[in-house]
Amino acid sequence: MRILLINPNTSQSVSDLIAAEARRAASASTHIDVVTAPLGVAYIETRFEALIGAYAAANLAAEKASKYDALVIAAFGDPGLWGIREAVDIPVIGLTEAALMSACMLGNRFSIIAISHRITAWYRECVQANGLAGRLASIRCLQQPLQDIGTVQTDHESRLRELCMQAIDADGADVLILAGAPLAGLARTIRNDIPVPLVEGVSSAVRHAETLIALAPGTAERGSFSPPPPKPNQGLSAAMQALLKRERPPI
Amino acid sequence: MRILLINPNTSQSVSDLIAAEARRAASASTHIDVVTAPLGVAYIETRFEALIGAYAAANLAAEKASKYDALVIAAFGDPGLWGIREAVDIPVIGLTEAALMSACMLGNRFSIIAISHRITAWYRECVQANGLAGRLASIRCLQQPLQDIGTVQTDHESRLRELCMQAIDADGADVLILAGAPLAGLARTIRNDIPVPLVEGVSSAVRHAETLIALAPGTAERGSFSPPPPKPNQGLSAAMQALLKRERPPI
Amino acid sequence: MRILLINPNTSQSVSDLIAAEARRAASASTHIDVVTAPLGVAYIETRFEALIGAYAAANLAAEKASKYDALVIAAFGDPGLWGIREAVDIPVIGLTEAALMSACMLGNRFSIIAISHRITAWYRECVQANGLAGRLASIRCLQQPLQDIGTVQTDHESRLRELCMQAIDADGADVLILAGAPLAGLARTIRNDIPVPLVEGVSSAVRHAETLIALAPGTAERGSFSPPPPKPNQGLSAAMQALLKRERPPI
Amino acid sequence: MRILLINPNTSQSVSDLIAAEARRAASASTHIDVVTAPLGVAYIETRFEALIGAYAAANLAAEKASKYDALVIAAFGDPGLWGIREAVDIPVIGLTEAALMSACMLGNRFSIIAISHRITAWYRECVQANGLAGRLASIRCLQQPLQDIGTVQTDHESRLRELCMQAIDADGADVLILAGAPLAGLARTIRNDIPVPLVEGVSSAVRHAETLIALAPGTAERGSFSPPPPKPNQGLSAAMQALLKRERPPI
Amino acid sequence: MRILLINPNTSQSVSDLIAAEARRAASASTHIDVVTAPLGVAYIETRFEALIGAYAAANLAAEKASKYDALVIAAFGDPGLWGIREAVDIPVIGLTEAALMSACMLGNRFSIIAISHRITAWYRECVQANGLAGRLASIRCLQQPLQDIGTVQTDHESRLRELCMQAIDADGADVLILAGAPLAGLARTIRNDIPVPLVEGVSSAVRHAETLIALAPGTAERGSFSPPPPKPNQGLSAAMQALLKRERPPI
Amino acid sequence: MRILLINPNTSQSVSDLIAAEARRAASASTHIDVVTAPLGVAYIETRFEALIGAYAAANLAAEKASKYDALVIAAFGDPGLWGIREAVDIPVIGLTEAALMSACMLGNRFSIIAISHRITAWYRECVQANGLAGRLASIRCLQQPLQDIGTVQTDHESRLRELCMQAIDADGADVLILAGAPLAGLARTIRNDIPVPLVEGVSSAVRHAETLIALAPGTAERGSFSPPPPKPNQGLSAAMQALLKRERPPI
Repeated sequence: MRILLINPNTSQSVSDLIAAEARRAASASTHIDVVTAPLGVAYIETRFEALIGAYAAANLAAEKASKYDALVIAAFGDPGLWGIREAVDIPVIGLTEAALMSACMLGNRFSIIAISHRITAWYRECVQANGLAGRLASIRCLQQPLQDIGTVQTDHESRLRELCMQAIDADGADVLILAGAPLAGLARTIRNDIPVPLVEGVSSAVRHAETLIALAPGTAERGSFSPPPPKPNQGLSAAMQALLKRERPPI
Repeated sequence: MRILLINPNTSQSVSDLIAAEARRAASASTHIDVVTAPLGVAYIETRFEALIGAYAAANLAAEKASKYDALVIAAFGDPGLWGIREAVDIPVIGLTEAALMSACMLGNRFSIIAISHRITAWYRECVQANGLAGRLASIRCLQQPLQDIGTVQTDHESRLRELCMQAIDADGADVLILAGAPLAGLARTIRNDIPVPLVEGVSSAVRHAETLIALAPGTAERGSFSPPPPKPNQGLSAAMQALLKRERPPI
Repeated sequence: MRILLINPNTSQSVSDLIAAEARRAASASTHIDVVTAPLGVAYIETRFEALIGAYAAANLAAEKASKYDALVIAAFGDPGLWGIREAVDIPVIGLTEAALMSACMLGNRFSIIAISHRITAWYRECVQANGLAGRLASIRCLQQPLQDIGTVQTDHESRLRELCMQAIDADGADVLILAGAPLAGLARTIRNDIPVPLVEGVSSAVRHAETLIALAPGTAERGSFSPPPPKPNQGLSAAMQALLKRERPPI
Repeated sequence: MRILLINPNTSQSVSDLIAAEARRAASASTHIDVVTAPLGVAYIETRFEALIGAYAAANLAAEKASKYDALVIAAFGDPGLWGIREAVDIPVIGLTEAALMSACMLGNRFSIIAISHRITAWYRECVQANGLAGRLASIRCLQQPLQDIGTVQTDHESRLRELCMQAIDADGADVLILAGAPLAGLARTIRNDIPVPLVEGVSSAVRHAETLIALAPGTAERGSFSPPPPKPNQGLSAAMQALLKRERPPI
Repeated sequence: MRILLINPNTSQSVSDLIAAEARRAASASTHIDVVTAPLGVAYIETRFEALIGAYAAANLAAEKASKYDALVIAAFGDPGLWGIREAVDIPVIGLTEAALMSACMLGNRFSIIAISHRITAWYRECVQANGLAGRLASIRCLQQPLQDIGTVQTDHESRLRELCMQAIDADGADVLILAGAPLAGLARTIRNDIPVPLVEGVSSAVRHAETLIALAPGTAERGSFSPPPPKPNQGLSAAMQALLKRERPPI
Repeated sequence: MRILLINPNTSQSVSDLIAAEARRAASASTHIDVVTAPLGVAYIETRFEALIGAYAAANLAAEKASKYDALVIAAFGDPGLWGIREAVDIPVIGLTEAALMSACMLGNRFSIIAISHRITAWYRECVQANGLAGRLASIRCLQQPLQDIGTVQTDHESRLRELCMQAIDADGADVLILAGAPLAGLARTIRNDIPVPLVEGVSSAVRHAETLIALAPGTAERGSFSPPPPKPNQGLSAAMQALLKRERPPI
């Protein structure tokens, strides 16, 4: 199996974290690639930045999807996820979605641990769009400014551990989600000290992508996730144009 | 007052409909401009197309906002609306949002009349993101292929009237929303024959934009609609870069 | 345009606040009148008082509606709003509804700042009846007894400012609503010191009323907001009897 | 035990139906009185009529409550229920509420069978205000004009039976609620032919009132159902003024 | 009337509390029996223990139902309630359900006071399954280990009183529910000191059972609460087999 | 990896279907066992039967869990799932839950195709307990009596295909779930003819179980999925007693 993780952030350091965690999580026979957005911001925290990241991810998906068995949109918040799922004919999974699915199989109510206050509104809306707001116990977050997005998890490890314990004891979380690509890998580091199951997006997404490839559930030829109907377009990259032209045969 | 309507579709014919309806709806002293997306598809029906439209609209907003008192994202479905609202410091309103607000002040439950079956999932998710799914009586839509997006409202007028009556009599709608910029102006044409209040997005958005300008409620310096925190970015237009650099003074 | 604001409270001092704010908010050509309930309590805080206020407002609406282009039920909590909307054939708007609509176009989640603890349950139920409980971040309120309902906003200004800041920082409000006719005008006073958009009901209602008049969406001849079916009645005022007899022609 | 049923409709014929069913349902030692609104409409179908009925019921409650152990607001839709519950210090129950509670103890999802199309919006909103919209399978209703509100149940019995069967077979109702005081007694007549439990409001309310009297749960001295705080009032009946003056001793 | 209360806990001391409170609450002519689960745990706090309790209660119901007019599943959390309701042809009521119904007729939002932290998740899920999560103000609980389940209410009375006051003042509860069979009777003890209505499950269930017997709403011959369709089974008690064989005559 | 699927139905023919599909779906190195409930009914359709199945599954889990890396509760409706998850220290997954998670990663709204009308209420409540009712487009089901639970999928294949197409075209499903262990394997047979992704529970559960084993998220030592607190019990099997005694070391 070949899985491409698309980092909608422009930070190579975050892509490196993603790649390391993805390869650790993947089955032995799975090939993992990671590509970094050439356009956008260092790390997405807001709806506006997510809108840019969605466009960057869509362009990368258009360019690369044909060489892979599944795509992962590798930013928590899942910029562009459902749109890209319409356009390509392979499974596409987002980090938030993947972590939510893992969490739902381990308990009832989950909390999200996030790297900044500003990012929490975007995460909350993403959980709502997934229809799972009723199971969200809380979102807890770092309040400090981040020095280096590539080393957040080591710079703030002790505070992140505290947030985990507060979510369990004060908010009643059954399961915790460490949110955001910059925290990829932290779950393994601290898991043994946290008294509830702990999941994160990259490893969840890679494993769930393998599952969807293996299940081979078929593609959407009808319904709201079938490919966009062909129509005039302009100003788009060659890859995007090609993607929009490709209409799967009707049943 | 100066209001810019941004058409995230690339169709000039739709922009013409928008401009005509916007000018009819605006107060005498309001100046209306309409700009058409240089990049994207002829008319947005899917999440993927909306993602492109959001990026196009964001770029136009970055370029033009400083010369206006309010922006309108002039496609039903509101591509990029909440993101753009973060980034600029003037009111930004979407057609769906505007029509929903009008409808909510005229009744309890509303139905949406749409131009294609494919477009309905995107609309439904937009209503949900606005938190108003509980008041949505139904979405009814044309099933025929559209010949010309600029003449949908005349080509299919009689069917659109039928859909209106079905929404009232079978679905219990108190108010109807004619959805989509291509139907701009139709409400005035058929209003006298429809036995419940009938609203649409362009006129609602222009009037609500005037209201927000007049109310002068202040801008978001904190909270999730304050400007994105400054951080490294790459690959963006000069206007977008300038917008992301502009940080409003903290309180 | 001629707009009548009906104060369902019996306090003339509150009517004066309402009138001043309404005239400031209205367009130059709009004529504003305010009428005070001859029957009821000084200021409504409870469901029981609201029930009385609804009846008083309905009687005033029956008496006066024919001379106006729109009515505003000028108490937060909107006593009798949806009922009166059925009975008259002009737009009728409530303060809560109007403020909610303004808030929804400025952010996602809003908080309400209220003048007493007792009033909050009634407000919460009003937000729920509007279907917007999912966007309510919090209701924060004064806890002190009120000396004079006409001077609440000056007597308690500093505490009201504190409540605003708590709603932003602790509850995550994107927008604030200053609730209740007795606070009419306060938003303008403190707006520059509050780092998120701030709206209130009177100015919102006047502007939205102008919008509905301008949009001319048509009246409800069918559905749940059409006039009550004629039937025997007794014990009602002459104006109320006349209103209940008036049946608009069927389509 | 002494229970007063307040009919917010002005129809004596409906009061007679209510009285008969209430006496049949009550325990042997319970004394039942029924009083008819002196002010309002023959039978409430709309929000506007309910607003009038609420005021009429409140006045009757103010006048009579001191002589009873519990009150029943005897119109489906429960006009004024929660308001009146604040003001008096005995249990107050509504027909909708009472039927909903019975239904919830007999199954999961319930349907409501109603006497007119127009009445359904008001009922739906009443179920929502009770927080039970998630268990509402459907509302089905007569579509014919009603000749005589006092004989609806016999004039339309066969159609009402059909509606019951449709709610079971097409809508998946586990339990049926025959709604509206004019149908009081019909449940007993047709129960043996309906293959799911069948409840109605009058008998449910009388029995639940007896239960609340027997449980003696205490009154609300705090919280949102404690008596309205004393304050100036005007234009109210002597009974209403007395009620508003009566403040229970604080704890 | 003959009502059997089935205690799904194995504690005889709790059954004694249940029996005492049930007899105090019942009408004079009602005969009350209590039976204790022969299989299970001393007191149910978790979903796993509830699953065992449900099976034990189902077996007791199968064995005993034919001699009674109604059953009460006498553990808060209602283990097995809806399943048992399908299988027997008399009313079956649970303590949570019964207390919720009482609470809903006394106010809008209620809080639950519970005997252990661990038990709260199970209670919350039970409220959600009843569709009433929107009216749940809070669940507050003892945090101390319980020495003796039969004397919790006296051992911890002062803390339980504190929890009541916190639920009123901090959480906005209109009504309180003392949860769990081990607290049966406490409501009567402390009621006069608590400034909002206070209910509990045993007395509510007994009274509501009497009501359902009196209303005689008919049994479910169709729909999801009709008896399970006959089919092969194995490994079950003779009583359970007999119950599963008994099919009520189709209509 | 060693995964045990527990069939809470007593039908060996269904266990055979489960085993075949589980082995087809599993990774090459995964060992699959299936065990059939010794106690219960041939196939669970109702809450009462599910209550029995939950107890049977719990006993099997207690007996066998220590020899496996994960358990699957192999009946759609997930009898006992969350309870068993508390008690054992390995991942436990249910068929409904597993299929829901797969469906959520392939689209937004899903429909469930079921083998009998009676079974649908139980399924609906299971989706609600998972917090995903908002994404449920519909449940469609066979109406015919089932001759042989082991051959439902071949006996009724053409009707099941029709139900699939109706869910897509009339209900707007993006993804379909073939529900119930008796349909295990059918998804592979008909997938190519169905124009949206099609998933079922057995293959989803096996793959998700592998994922949870690989992610090694840690066990619940706190919160509502930690093991039930030790306390007196009686009447339970030796395996159940041992399980209840085993308390994991506190952190």
